[in-house]
Amino acid sequence: MAGVNSPAERFDLITRRLQEVLGGEAIKALLEQGQNPKCYWGTAPTGRPHIGYFVPLTKIADFLRAGVEVTILFADVHAFLDNLKAPLELVGYRTKYYEYILTTVFKSLGIPTSKLRFIEGSSYQLTKEYNMDNYKLCSIVTEHDAKKAGAEVVKQVENAFLSGLLYPGLQALDEQYLGCDFQFGGVDQRKIFVFAEEYLPKLGYAKRAHLMNPMVPGLAGGKMSSSDPNSKIDFLDSPDVVKSKIKKAFCEEGNVTENGLLAFAKAVLIPISELRLERLKSKTVADPEEGSVSLGEPKPFITDDAPEGAVFTIQRDTKFGGPSHYKSYDEMEKDFAEKNLHPGDLKVAVRDAINSLLDPIRKAFEANEEWQKIEKLAYPDPNAKPEKKKKAKVYHPPPPGKGKNAIPLESAPSEATPEEAPAEPSAP
Amino acid sequence: MAGVNSPAERFDLITRRLQEVLGGEAIKALLEQGQNPKCYWGTAPTGRPHIGYFVPLTKIADFLRAGVEVTILFADVHAFLDNLKAPLELVGYRTKYYEYILTTVFKSLGIPTSKLRFIEGSSYQLTKEYNMDNYKLCSIVTEHDAKKAGAEVVKQVENAFLSGLLYPGLQALDEQYLGCDFQFGGVDQRKIFVFAEEYLPKLGYAKRAHLMNPMVPGLAGGKMSSSDPNSKIDFLDSPDVVKSKIKKAFCEEGNVTENGLLAFAKAVLIPISELRLERLKSKTVADPEEGSVSLGEPKPFITDDAPEGAVFTIQRDTKFGGPSHYKSYDEMEKDFAEKNLHPGDLKVAVRDAINSLLDPIRKAFEANEEWQKIEKLAYPDPNAKPEKKKKAKVYHPPPPGKGKNAIPLESAPSEATPEEAPAEPSAP
Repeated sequence: MAGVNSPAERFDLITRRLQEVLGGEAIKALLEQGQNPKCYWGTAPTGRPHIGYFVPLTKIADFLRAGVEVTILFADVHAFLDNLKAPLELVGYRTKYYEYILTTVFKSLGIPTSKLRFIEGSSYQLTKEYNMDNYKLCSIVTEHDAKKAGAEVVKQVENAFLSGLLYPGLQALDEQYLGCDFQFGGVDQRKIFVFAEEYLPKLGYAKRAHLMNPMVPGLAGGKMSSSDPNSKIDFLDSPDVVKSKIKKAFCEEGNVTENGLLAFAKAVLIPISELRLERLKSKTVADPEEGSVSLGEPKPFITDDAPEGAVFTIQRDTKFGGPSHYKSYDEMEKDFAEKNLHPGDLKVAVRDAINSLLDPIRKAFEANEEWQKIEKLAYPDPNAKPEKKKKAKVYHPPPPGKGKNAIPLESAPSEATPEEAPAEPSAP
Repeated sequence: MAGVNSPAERFDLITRRLQEVLGGEAIKALLEQGQNPKCYWGTAPTGRPHIGYFVPLTKIADFLRAGVEVTILFADVHAFLDNLKAPLELVGYRTKYYEYILTTVFKSLGIPTSKLRFIEGSSYQLTKEYNMDNYKLCSIVTEHDAKKAGAEVVKQVENAFLSGLLYPGLQALDEQYLGCDFQFGGVDQRKIFVFAEEYLPKLGYAKRAHLMNPMVPGLAGGKMSSSDPNSKIDFLDSPDVVKSKIKKAFCEEGNVTENGLLAFAKAVLIPISELRLERLKSKTVADPEEGSVSLGEPKPFITDDAPEGAVFTIQRDTKFGGPSHYKSYDEMEKDFAEKNLHPGDLKVAVRDAINSLLDPIRKAFEANEEWQKIEKLAYPDPNAKPEKKKKAKVYHPPPPGKGKNAIPLESAPSEATPEEAPAEPSAP
């Protein structure tokens, strides 16, 4: 595989669109030696994953295409600890559900998964060796350093739980125990990554590289609310629900800074469109299997009449000027800023693109009875009426998104924190 | 055994001379049912144990005589973590050394050890179940509560290590994993004990009782210094060394508050004298083996001409008034406060009593080659010259008690803390 792409091309593919790379030289060196770097990305299988997960997965698709060996960690121990009321069994179902979603997303994008492995934290985080290392870390890490490391991802409250102080150390140890060359995450993980770079060598372990995605706001824009169900689109939402949620999304004419739709187009839709264009031009990457397993219609998000180089098309009635074809995200953003691109037209284009991404996932779910069974076990209907026992008191569950055990409805993984949001994809 | 002593007598023996008992009713209930309560006491096998250990061991002797099943925990994981530079192998030798000392002390006092077991923390503190419980605790314990619990035994510094926050929770879990009915310790452990009473039930475990010894100052008195080797008497110190150290001990005429010698007589010498008197009067406790295995001469610390009821004799030349016989510690303290008992005479009496206690221990050590070998491995001579390799740089070790890896020379276990003093007997 290394023969197909040059080390430089592979490095570019691995690092493109990232906000920051720490330790890139080590990755380059591995590529120069013809090796496949190993990556780890972690997520806690808690609430239902939403389409914000497309953001890290789109980047992980690049890793896989570049021949990186990717480990996705399902931090089930953390998920269990985040809410001790959710029994371990439930966390197990959720882990399985996450695995179905993630596998299907890669399949739908035609990304070969032979170099992808899923691993559960519980398979090694409770071993003697790991815990001894945890204790060792606790003997050399100060409260101050632990708190600083977690500042961006652990809720900073006056009277925090000890677990929040342990997370940075555990995440550092995961790099060692998963045998990765680099860890991937959102740039909100930066302090945790720098902490890992400092402390792993103190235990005699290698310092790892760290690759960071930019933060992407939720689809509802800057004014996202965790209690607003419209700010989050589920992978299994029907086309009508997607339509309704996008319709309600905050998208102000000319405003490109608080614009979840533009952000999603930049981080997900255009990269996927480009990936499909590259593939159409046989500019595939390395793996001969790439594209052979795509689900659905792997069409780039452009119309047939789009000019050479276009990566995204906004369709529009001819009386309003006809379609706009963009060769880059920047072109589209500029057009929106100058009010040449109207929010209504952007919404329709984004809605259709999202539905075309979700369509094969919905179909795969509908065709898979086992997955459907797991889904029911992982996220039991909170409105389902419990069987009444005589006339004893009956528990009345709160409506979705309400009540103390409610699953927060987040619109983007990037703004979630391990403590409050079950759907955080970049921090275990 | 329960038939020999009434539950009330056993309870009195278990709780006599303690400063505080939390949950005594639960112990009483077990005794009423004819059961043997289970006790756990922990110590970290770090520095050389000194005769301050006689304080908890004298009380543990009461437990054993009352038929309590005693577990002594050697907190080897903690010992290792306290100083990551001491390899685990060294901690293993020290554990073995502690076991020799403690076993020999009980033997020398004629205390049957059939209900005594030693256990190493590493045998269960690194298991999956224990660590899951540790993580669970960390999810419900706040920094504030952990810090408060450790306030008396964990060094309170501005920038503390995380390990100090974990210790209270781990010590609570030990109660569950060692299956004890009560934990024993110095009253400096009170906050940790109360913490355990609060948090174990939150994990679904039983709340344990807590029995607390008063704090006993070091032999050098209130002005103990960890860098003063005279403030600490080793179990294996020769009679001359004991003599010299006692001679230098702070013991001011009439001063009973800062007086390590009086404190030691109260907590150790008089209780042991009483134990021997009880045994001479066949007022032995329960176990038919009691007294049958005594090493040395198990004589009470009184002269043959002492009147009935005397528990401690201060010998004195007739020209200074002849011997004083005391029927209780209080009598002796009063005499000292009123300056009828001179510091010089007290020193001689305490010195002779200590030497009579140490004599069988020294002899047992001298007769046991394996123990001697372990001693050399556990506490290698810091002044031993390392073999020179050619003309390479040679490491010059600091003198005893100096240098960053020095073993602090504490005189009493009660003033040690887990973080700074290796010889703390009451906190793992």
